[in-house]
Amino acid sequence: MDAAQCWEFLRGHELGRLAYHLADEVHIVPVNYAVHHEPATDRRSLLFRTAEGSKLLGVVMNADVAFEVDEVVGEHATSVVLRGRARRLEEDEEHRSEDVPLHPWVDTEKWNVVEIEVSEISGRDLELSRPWTHLVQRDD
Amino acid sequence: MDAAQCWEFLRGHELGRLAYHLADEVHIVPVNYAVHHEPATDRRSLLFRTAEGSKLLGVVMNADVAFEVDEVVGEHATSVVLRGRARRLEEDEEHRSEDVPLHPWVDTEKWNVVEIEVSEISGRDLELSRPWTHLVQRDD
Repeated sequence: MDAAQCWEFLRGHELGRLAYHLADEVHIVPVNYAVHHEPATDRRSLLFRTAEGSKLLGVVMNADVAFEVDEVVGEHATSVVLRGRARRLEEDEEHRSEDVPLHPWVDTEKWNVVEIEVSEISGRDLELSRPWTHLVQRDD
Repeated sequence: MDAAQCWEFLRGHELGRLAYHLADEVHIVPVNYAVHHEPATDRRSLLFRTAEGSKLLGVVMNADVAFEVDEVVGEHATSVVLRGRARRLEEDEEHRSEDVPLHPWVDTEKWNVVEIEVSEISGRDLELSRPWTHLVQRDD
């Protein structure tokens, strides 16, 4: 998959997994995201919201992150992985999240918008060979 | 979800995402895994295979990892996240991967078996509120 195909894939999905570090620990969390596209510059990034005070804001202190989105159809999985830097949008930038399909969500609490600026993106297919399907109960 | 429910969830799935660090970078990769259960000790761990020379073997040098498995049904997602330590099984332990539904896969190449010893496990539900479904084309 080339970068354009990867972005198209991302745009067609909404749930990804964010990997980040806090101190020396790696964490991973599912995230409901949207792709932001700035037509003027043709720049694309990911946006997601996180509640005020969330541990996820740790990404602001340690901006290096990785993100994964996948889709499984039968025994075939497609996975797009990206690496980049996360930063919290300033209040005067948060309007950008109004332009993407990220809207209401958790309107009852204060949230922050985090953007991931993508430095690397790649996609791959993997086959889930399932010779063990009939064995799945075996370790009971 | 309590720990038993989390393990049951893991046992019922086969594709997860491994987050690990290599040097100062966080990486994430989809992984086809299996749950290993040792009846004598009632200990559970995750096993996966990785090709000889794979970058994934970096987990051996930096054993701190996180792992995520999820399932989306309609607008409802269930996600199990764990943290733990990864290590490569020694040759005399690799037989353990014979006891789990991880069998053939890539029989043509030399592989290593990596085990994740789990230190924390938790599950959560998240609602994918989709007020924007009709907007998904909007950033074209």
